[in-house]
Amino acid sequence: MTEFRSMAAETGEPHGDPFKVHGPADVAAACASADAAFIRYSSTSREDRAAFLERIAEEIMAIGDPLIEAAMTESGLPRARLDGERGRTWNQLRMFADVVRRGQWLQVRIDPALPERQPPRPDLRMRMVPLGPVAVFGASNFPLAFSTAGGDTASALAAGCPVVVKGHPAHPITGDLVAQAISRAVAACGLPEGVFGHLVGPSNELGATLVQDPRIAAVGFTGSRMGGLALSRIAQTRKVPIPVYAEMSSINPVVLLPEALKARGAELGAAFVGSLTMGAGQFCTNPGLVLAIEGEGLDAFIGAASETVAGAGPQTMLTTGIRDAYAKGVEALSGCAGVETLAKGETGDRTRGDANLFQTTGSAFLSDEGMGHEVFGASSIIVRCKNEGELAKVIAGLEGQLTATLHMDAADEAAASRLLPALERKVGRILANGWPTGVEVCHAMVHGGPFPATSDSRTTSVGSLAIDRFLRPVCYQNLSQSVLPDELRDDAASNGVPRLVDGKLTLD
Amino acid sequence: MTEFRSMAAETGEPHGDPFKVHGPADVAAACASADAAFIRYSSTSREDRAAFLERIAEEIMAIGDPLIEAAMTESGLPRARLDGERGRTWNQLRMFADVVRRGQWLQVRIDPALPERQPPRPDLRMRMVPLGPVAVFGASNFPLAFSTAGGDTASALAAGCPVVVKGHPAHPITGDLVAQAISRAVAACGLPEGVFGHLVGPSNELGATLVQDPRIAAVGFTGSRMGGLALSRIAQTRKVPIPVYAEMSSINPVVLLPEALKARGAELGAAFVGSLTMGAGQFCTNPGLVLAIEGEGLDAFIGAASETVAGAGPQTMLTTGIRDAYAKGVEALSGCAGVETLAKGETGDRTRGDANLFQTTGSAFLSDEGMGHEVFGASSIIVRCKNEGELAKVIAGLEGQLTATLHMDAADEAAASRLLPALERKVGRILANGWPTGVEVCHAMVHGGPFPATSDSRTTSVGSLAIDRFLRPVCYQNLSQSVLPDELRDDAASNGVPRLVDGKLTLD
Repeated sequence: MTEFRSMAAETGEPHGDPFKVHGPADVAAACASADAAFIRYSSTSREDRAAFLERIAEEIMAIGDPLIEAAMTESGLPRARLDGERGRTWNQLRMFADVVRRGQWLQVRIDPALPERQPPRPDLRMRMVPLGPVAVFGASNFPLAFSTAGGDTASALAAGCPVVVKGHPAHPITGDLVAQAISRAVAACGLPEGVFGHLVGPSNELGATLVQDPRIAAVGFTGSRMGGLALSRIAQTRKVPIPVYAEMSSINPVVLLPEALKARGAELGAAFVGSLTMGAGQFCTNPGLVLAIEGEGLDAFIGAASETVAGAGPQTMLTTGIRDAYAKGVEALSGCAGVETLAKGETGDRTRGDANLFQTTGSAFLSDEGMGHEVFGASSIIVRCKNEGELAKVIAGLEGQLTATLHMDAADEAAASRLLPALERKVGRILANGWPTGVEVCHAMVHGGPFPATSDSRTTSVGSLAIDRFLRPVCYQNLSQSVLPDELRDDAASNGVPRLVDGKLTLD
Repeated sequence: MTEFRSMAAETGEPHGDPFKVHGPADVAAACASADAAFIRYSSTSREDRAAFLERIAEEIMAIGDPLIEAAMTESGLPRARLDGERGRTWNQLRMFADVVRRGQWLQVRIDPALPERQPPRPDLRMRMVPLGPVAVFGASNFPLAFSTAGGDTASALAAGCPVVVKGHPAHPITGDLVAQAISRAVAACGLPEGVFGHLVGPSNELGATLVQDPRIAAVGFTGSRMGGLALSRIAQTRKVPIPVYAEMSSINPVVLLPEALKARGAELGAAFVGSLTMGAGQFCTNPGLVLAIEGEGLDAFIGAASETVAGAGPQTMLTTGIRDAYAKGVEALSGCAGVETLAKGETGDRTRGDANLFQTTGSAFLSDEGMGHEVFGASSIIVRCKNEGELAKVIAGLEGQLTATLHMDAADEAAASRLLPALERKVGRILANGWPTGVEVCHAMVHGGPFPATSDSRTTSVGSLAIDRFLRPVCYQNLSQSVLPDELRDDAASNGVPRLVDGKLTLD
């Protein structure tokens, strides 16, 4: 295949002009160009790099409505959602510009020489340096905020790494518009072309070839468990293995604590379905699992949730492939022993998915690992536990998750505190009295978690901490002032970058 | 095999009482015990955890001379070196106690709620939590500072992770003495027994079983490339993959810049051999590669280095296995096309290794990858480059390294600055006018580097930054003050732990 076309989500039919399918020669050229740009780009000043990120944000906004319209057609997501996503993309780039300027990510550490000590201590200084060119895989479910110029791209560029994006084939027109905007920013800022590359094509081989390229130093990925694991395997079996940050699979348990359930079971049930069906359930943080102890309020929760699901219309899904996988997942879950279908929304079709709600018991859930697997879409299962002991067992048996949610009242605080340590071992974010969908882009956010939520629990893919994924420390021992990197020189001490001097943090 | 015995390094013969060989049941018991201790240990206060680390340091000192004598017999290393290593072990435990108290490792981040914003921003707080029980593999070449209570153990315990040590079979008596000291500290501090476990045996299977145990959450290892790669493969193919921090293989290039060479070639040559033959060359940071440009002073360097090597006596190596591998490595290197033997020290025997010095040309080195492989012991090869261009090519072709050393005068600064970016891509520490052996335990130290120097270039195994290897971030959204972890509560704001509030670092 030498060409492929964009498919409209609503019709499942091709539209627009065909795109050239990139092959191994294009991958090699993009990686060579990124590698050639690395030393120059990685040594840009903090101010120049920040200005470049801001310029990308501007260029994306300058595309105007054609960007929103392309994303609507390709993803089937509504205008308001995509407007919001564009705002998030803009905010995220500007947040990283701010982070780059502040320079905390450099983690400057200085242990001054102790010439009188026996043996004398040399002068030792440390800073973070970028890893090298980064391969980024755009996600289908966030065509703007987690794709071509999304969180992975923004954080890798902020770290000083050139980026080669493997665009998601579900939105090639959107991806191309954004890629062109980034390339305009590269040119406007006088940076080498290789700072940003963009490869497109419908096959998995394209991505595999990219990860195999010896010039790629790290990978950012958001997508399926199968896809993330495949890329991890490729990265680990290279001659020089590289880190893969894959955000893959999560069912985001929602724990309903007894007092909250008693006080507002029905209200919670309706609100839960609002989170479940948002964006056709196509969120990494979609609440696919509800855990509750049998008792007052649970029936009211289930009644309200079931009613809301039954009244939910079918929604266009991102691709017909995702729609088919969703239908299969729902069928598999409904066929598990001990699983009862509580409600089903209005039936979908070839491009649209329906909402689905199931229930089971704690003991049935504990005896069938399959019930804990992600079904990507608006499907959720309620697990009725006999008591807090069984609830704790269910939590202990869960796979790693992006989030866990506690619905609780003041009188539930003791129970919440008892469950907290076990939840911390399983998830990246614990939230109270809210819903896991809706991920704030900020400094304290963790969008990550133990395997298989991600391939690397030590990181986050959303928020400013994401920059750390693309950095590594280098120590400089007894280098003269003129050879030392700028931020480590004595005369940089008052430039606002925090320094750990002899183990003590100083802000100037 | 159910028992094994310690071997005296100098004689290669067994000595002392036999040790029980641990098997799968012992591994399972140690891991179950570590897992059971995790939540309790990980929630110790910073003060309690710091006091525990200090108690371990005291208990190790309290063993007294029997510890030094056991290590001398088992490793063949001299008393002064082992005295120093014990001091380093003590310092390192106390440094981590200090780090734990300061609390910067918690990386507290707070983004306060913005209820007026549309949509409102929830209250978001982040801190680091420990990964879980850590498996530590003691190194043969540092029986104290990088073994049972070495850097990996100290940093994992500092992070709040229970530790299961797989003791190195080259020093079981030393390891047992230290393990008992740690267990006394665990008991004295009223901590659960499972905070520290110790397994011994001569086979690789013991370590493999340990890494496969589902309760182990991370691995620290210092040893051979083959061993590190084997453990990494096991860790990656587990049902739940875990991070492996393996410090494996490095030849630590020493670059002699022209003006320094011209000014003091002979002096540098003699000093170089001092670093090369220290501890029979059994350092991860041993200078196994010298890079120089043909010119004035290089012959003087080579003359002095050759003379010093020729006069060097054979030295007892850690084990007869290491001695055999060294002899094979030297033979292979001497047989490479284009390699000339410059000097050989007094011939060794079954337990003692001789010093060896080789030379080759830049073009020969570039055409044979094998010349760049580590030979663990007192062997080094000098690469004569035609010009700075060829020198740069040789650097660009190197594998990842722990260190690179520049010998330079003021007039070499321009050349050093030109080479620096390429060196930064290859190594974890760059030093000027010193020798790579001798690794300061401090805050700015990086004992790490790109593959195969380590399996994870994003970290260090020496120095206070090593604690980060065993931590992961967790975000807490809208949790009430009484449920939040201590360090994240509003009333903890002035406890001295730095906080990133709305992206701005504050010290109180």
